[in-house]
Amino acid sequence: MSFPQAFVDPSSVAVVGATEDRAKWGYWLATGALAGAGRRQVWLVNHRAAQVLGQSCRPTVDALPQAPDLVALCVPPRHVLPVVRDALAKGCRAFLSITAGLGADEAELAALLHESGARMIGPNSLGLFNAAAELRLAWGHFTHGRLAIVSQSGQLGSEIAGLGARAGLGVSRFYSVGNQLDVGAVDVLESLVSDDHTGTVALYLESFADGARIVTALEALRRAGKHALLLTTGASEGSRLLARSHTGSMTSALDVVDAACRAAGALRVATPRELVDTARVLDATAPPGGRRVAVISDSGGQAGIAADLAADRGLRAPVFTEPLQARLRELLPDAAAVSNPVDLAGAGEADLQVYARVTELVAASGEVDSIVLSGYLGRYGEDSPSLVDAESAVIDRLGRRRGTDEARVPLIVHSMSADSPAVARLREHRVPVFDTVDAALCALGHVTRLGAQAHPAPAREHRVPVLDTVDAALGALGHVTRLGAQARPAPAAGRIGAAVPAPGYWAARTFLTGLGIVMPEARRVTDAAGFAEACASLRPPLVLKAGWIEHKSEHRAVRTGLGPDTAAAVFREMYERLGPGEYVVEEQDTRPGVVELLIGARRDRDFGPTVTVGHGGVLAELWHDVAVELAPVDRRTAAGMLDRLRSRRLLDGWRGQPAVDLDALIDAVVTVSEAIAANPGVADIEVNPIRVGPEGAVAVDALVVPRTENVVAKAASEATGVYRHRETTEEQEASREHVH
Amino acid sequence: MSFPQAFVDPSSVAVVGATEDRAKWGYWLATGALAGAGRRQVWLVNHRAAQVLGQSCRPTVDALPQAPDLVALCVPPRHVLPVVRDALAKGCRAFLSITAGLGADEAELAALLHESGARMIGPNSLGLFNAAAELRLAWGHFTHGRLAIVSQSGQLGSEIAGLGARAGLGVSRFYSVGNQLDVGAVDVLESLVSDDHTGTVALYLESFADGARIVTALEALRRAGKHALLLTTGASEGSRLLARSHTGSMTSALDVVDAACRAAGALRVATPRELVDTARVLDATAPPGGRRVAVISDSGGQAGIAADLAADRGLRAPVFTEPLQARLRELLPDAAAVSNPVDLAGAGEADLQVYARVTELVAASGEVDSIVLSGYLGRYGEDSPSLVDAESAVIDRLGRRRGTDEARVPLIVHSMSADSPAVARLREHRVPVFDTVDAALCALGHVTRLGAQAHPAPAREHRVPVLDTVDAALGALGHVTRLGAQARPAPAAGRIGAAVPAPGYWAARTFLTGLGIVMPEARRVTDAAGFAEACASLRPPLVLKAGWIEHKSEHRAVRTGLGPDTAAAVFREMYERLGPGEYVVEEQDTRPGVVELLIGARRDRDFGPTVTVGHGGVLAELWHDVAVELAPVDRRTAAGMLDRLRSRRLLDGWRGQPAVDLDALIDAVVTVSEAIAANPGVADIEVNPIRVGPEGAVAVDALVVPRTENVVAKAASEATGVYRHRETTEEQEASREHVH
Repeated sequence: MSFPQAFVDPSSVAVVGATEDRAKWGYWLATGALAGAGRRQVWLVNHRAAQVLGQSCRPTVDALPQAPDLVALCVPPRHVLPVVRDALAKGCRAFLSITAGLGADEAELAALLHESGARMIGPNSLGLFNAAAELRLAWGHFTHGRLAIVSQSGQLGSEIAGLGARAGLGVSRFYSVGNQLDVGAVDVLESLVSDDHTGTVALYLESFADGARIVTALEALRRAGKHALLLTTGASEGSRLLARSHTGSMTSALDVVDAACRAAGALRVATPRELVDTARVLDATAPPGGRRVAVISDSGGQAGIAADLAADRGLRAPVFTEPLQARLRELLPDAAAVSNPVDLAGAGEADLQVYARVTELVAASGEVDSIVLSGYLGRYGEDSPSLVDAESAVIDRLGRRRGTDEARVPLIVHSMSADSPAVARLREHRVPVFDTVDAALCALGHVTRLGAQAHPAPAREHRVPVLDTVDAALGALGHVTRLGAQARPAPAAGRIGAAVPAPGYWAARTFLTGLGIVMPEARRVTDAAGFAEACASLRPPLVLKAGWIEHKSEHRAVRTGLGPDTAAAVFREMYERLGPGEYVVEEQDTRPGVVELLIGARRDRDFGPTVTVGHGGVLAELWHDVAVELAPVDRRTAAGMLDRLRSRRLLDGWRGQPAVDLDALIDAVVTVSEAIAANPGVADIEVNPIRVGPEGAVAVDALVVPRTENVVAKAASEATGVYRHRETTEEQEASREHVH
Repeated sequence: MSFPQAFVDPSSVAVVGATEDRAKWGYWLATGALAGAGRRQVWLVNHRAAQVLGQSCRPTVDALPQAPDLVALCVPPRHVLPVVRDALAKGCRAFLSITAGLGADEAELAALLHESGARMIGPNSLGLFNAAAELRLAWGHFTHGRLAIVSQSGQLGSEIAGLGARAGLGVSRFYSVGNQLDVGAVDVLESLVSDDHTGTVALYLESFADGARIVTALEALRRAGKHALLLTTGASEGSRLLARSHTGSMTSALDVVDAACRAAGALRVATPRELVDTARVLDATAPPGGRRVAVISDSGGQAGIAADLAADRGLRAPVFTEPLQARLRELLPDAAAVSNPVDLAGAGEADLQVYARVTELVAASGEVDSIVLSGYLGRYGEDSPSLVDAESAVIDRLGRRRGTDEARVPLIVHSMSADSPAVARLREHRVPVFDTVDAALCALGHVTRLGAQAHPAPAREHRVPVLDTVDAALGALGHVTRLGAQARPAPAAGRIGAAVPAPGYWAARTFLTGLGIVMPEARRVTDAAGFAEACASLRPPLVLKAGWIEHKSEHRAVRTGLGPDTAAAVFREMYERLGPGEYVVEEQDTRPGVVELLIGARRDRDFGPTVTVGHGGVLAELWHDVAVELAPVDRRTAAGMLDRLRSRRLLDGWRGQPAVDLDALIDAVVTVSEAIAANPGVADIEVNPIRVGPEGAVAVDALVVPRTENVVAKAASEATGVYRHRETTEEQEASREHVH
């Protein structure tokens, strides 16, 4: 069902609860609605006042001459249901409910909407705004621009709008989705894809139910040439607790949210200010094509601080080539630094055109992807009236770079002046200016990161259906699915059609080796005779595992280094201690020069299948050096995951060791990611460690958890309330299904 | 020699190069000087104009009726020497040189100053300012306040002043020390200790020559109840390169700068904005007593963002106790979150006094050390005139907290309004207000960190003389020094009076075991017969090392796990390959459950002896998990170093292992730190790994580098220019010694 036009550009609006009291919502929505009276019919409704704000007022919606296209509710909670009933009877089908705190009435409201096919934004919305349609049904003022704001928290949305206004960044649309009883943030996102007035979307979400649909909507925005910046919470215990206690939702793990953003070509930022600063740069320029930045300043100190911040933000200030340095030397005095950062060393003060000359030279050099100018420029005229014209001239010259080849290298300015006429002129030229170097580099870092993911992996398929209910998961067990189409050659015949494994190490081995994951030669044994026979057919040293025990080290359920002399005694001891079961005896991987990594895959509650790769072994948990993506991943994405690891250097040959077989490792990551994505019956895969050497990657321990176990875990969690949100959402969705 | 009063409150000032051209320094200094004409005699000097700015002008300093107390130079570089000569002849003894680019004249200028006993700030100063003395000899405007700015970069100092002015933070004094030909930043720092008008000192430095004196000055400021905030560069390759190419100095390693700050009770910040925001909080309140913070907002989203930032900044938002939650519940609606963060859930909107009630309750609870209020407060009156009075009342109530018991819990406000009358009123009450939550939490994080180091380790002695020249280092070799007074029991008799060791592992062992560091039982051997004898007296497994080879693993100069069967053959093979030398055979430490760490000590070029402890073993370099302090450290500081390690958890017992012997590890850190501090002949100590188990810490490899080797390295470095700055400084100091 498409997003109702009534929330975009209604033909008529009624504000119920309109009032002249400026401290009340009814005042703000009434004045806002009336501002659009030239475009549409606006009615004010108040059951006590005959006139409000100089307009005649009707006591009820029923008393209006016709059904309004959109009804905005600013009435006390107990009045919401009667007003909605009245309006539905009148024929209204779109509502905006500012009113919050409906309590038990919410369920009845949902039923009413559902029966009638009507739609509602809210309750607990802080309103909506559409600049192009002269539609303002919200608290506060909005400046007009190209930023759309979609927010689960009205006040955060309002903060973003306010910060934007102060920085000269206007709003195209604003939707505070409130409790999302009916219309959700994702509905709004989808509606923005086709909005020509929107360049960047600011999205604040506290929960990510329907994660796959959010990712799809973000991808669609990206394809439509728009950027999406996501703000969320959950980076700290405090915010997670708050999200749980307050809205009943549990925020998704941020690393998975980040993976979803990468997959969709969106970017997560940490604060409203970061969001607005990043949007300001995106409003002015395309993201840089890479992370090489030139830092230019008329102060060595400021250049140094900017260079430090650049490095902190993931950018790189490469040393210029000798030819470029030579050309800069020609422009600058002896005291100048020309290797990057560039310190003009007073040259700018002597001749302001130096700023433009240096910038143009560096931009045209092909040696950087972006330029930061930090310092006095923007303030010369303020301090010295005689420099006003010269400063304007250089700013115009810098501004004229737009449209030239060099303009593909974005220019970001940090000026020591906050709001001089020169700074205003820079802004007119759409050169992003910041009054702190912190903000300039933070924003540049963000847009650079956004540019780096300009081409999301094309082959990724994250929309494998996620069966999230107990029944579906149980039903999926034993179900055999096929892996999706693969661009790369299938490494093993057994890979296609992997079944849902039974618990236990042997089953995990069967599952994984069937997919093409290399594991040591092994035998399943249940008694001493079988064990002896197995040993005879395997090459020592051997490893013995009690396959059904999960935490093997703690239970002494694994023994390594078994030779012909010791094997039998070791088996006997373990068997006596742990009893009968499915033992596995395996050749030990003793290759020297290997690096131990872990590969994991699990099903995120909101975003579905994910894959993780990281530093493995006994200290894996300590260093927590992992990279996460939505599954499945292609080889390029898998390689990118490895590049993000702090321990990446180990793979290239550490301390004289040879480099490891990256291809084999990448294959394994891709395979595990496809396995979780294609097998709804699998809850969790953990390969730890996978030993990667110069020749191949060998998984020497693994765990594959069928969905049933997860369901059991989920049932246990429900008792503690951890999954409360999911249930709430499912209830909502259930009711919504009937509506649409 | 004390800081001349002429730089603080001169009785008379002459501005040489005074002009009416607002684009020139002579204009700014002349107008600034004239603004203080009510307090002191001001003369303008210009050899061409008879009148400047309506004042009669003299052509030369000589033509003045008497010698000015302070002479400010804004003349072309070639005029500086003649003017200084003229002024010295007249009897002047204090100069401020704005003029830069003196080139070869600098040496002659230094000589002139030295002969006459005169002092100079600059050349290349951007001026000085003293609010209390109505002294303004600088570009730009200054608002008056309690922040002193001492800057090696005039423009960064000016940026700090400008950001401060915009945020309502005024300046007490401003010194741009320029090239520090004579007066250095440390001289100014020392002069500020007794300045009653200064509350916080902002210090920008690019180089830390005379590091020990800087630390002493910062400590003195701290004892005088002032805070010092340090800004520097060097966090990136770019800024290090810049510092080297531009000023000839190489910035100190930031981890050592941070160690120096901790030792002195100062704090390093990353940007001018961070500095100003932190100073604003310090201007209003004492640092919190701990890192527990309460987050209060009228928006769940804003509360969540603030809580995430708090965690990111090293703060902790603890869950409130049930009694406190119960009391908050009484104040707030059902929808509110009361566990911390607190979400007022609309209660503030309904009754603004709720803000004060909740804040007071939380402040009085003893459960937090600081409070952050984030959201709408400060904007109610702006949006709704009817709320102006109510908002003022609650702000006054919050402001009145000062002086009460609860005021010991600082309150920081993030308001969605940038500059409403309500925000101004909060500022009047000296409640720090920020218009972004980023700035609020960043500043609170910094002041909290400052508060945590309120009591620098009392026993620390970092002023062990550092002999940094080639001659001194050579002379120190063979010199025997004694360790300083130690509060803790000496672990071994041999520890006092450790000699400078010869190179090689046996010598390193002798040196370290003499200090009380535990190492395995060992023998020094030079041939097969000696080896056999040694083996007989040691308990296998044994380790054989070619003691004179530094990178033993790479040269296969170490073999472990030697038993009676294998030892002889291993010795023979190594001896044949590496030839005669000082071999060491050692018992191997095979204790299970040990953690490998490294302890290092080196002499920082600027700050002298330092000590490092960190995660050891083969991946030490990869994880770079280390903590650094100035040496020597006491046990408390050593324990604090361990607490800062990411791998700290390994020491408490990892995955069921027993906790290690922390006391032994701390002893070893303290011992190594004392060894480097007390032995000027030692350049470097590296103990890696030191194996720490439940019973004791055993160093199993070590390197002790005598100062000579360092000197050799230094000589090599000089060829590449790395040590250029040091030489410059030494030259300067040499000339200065004659002056004083």
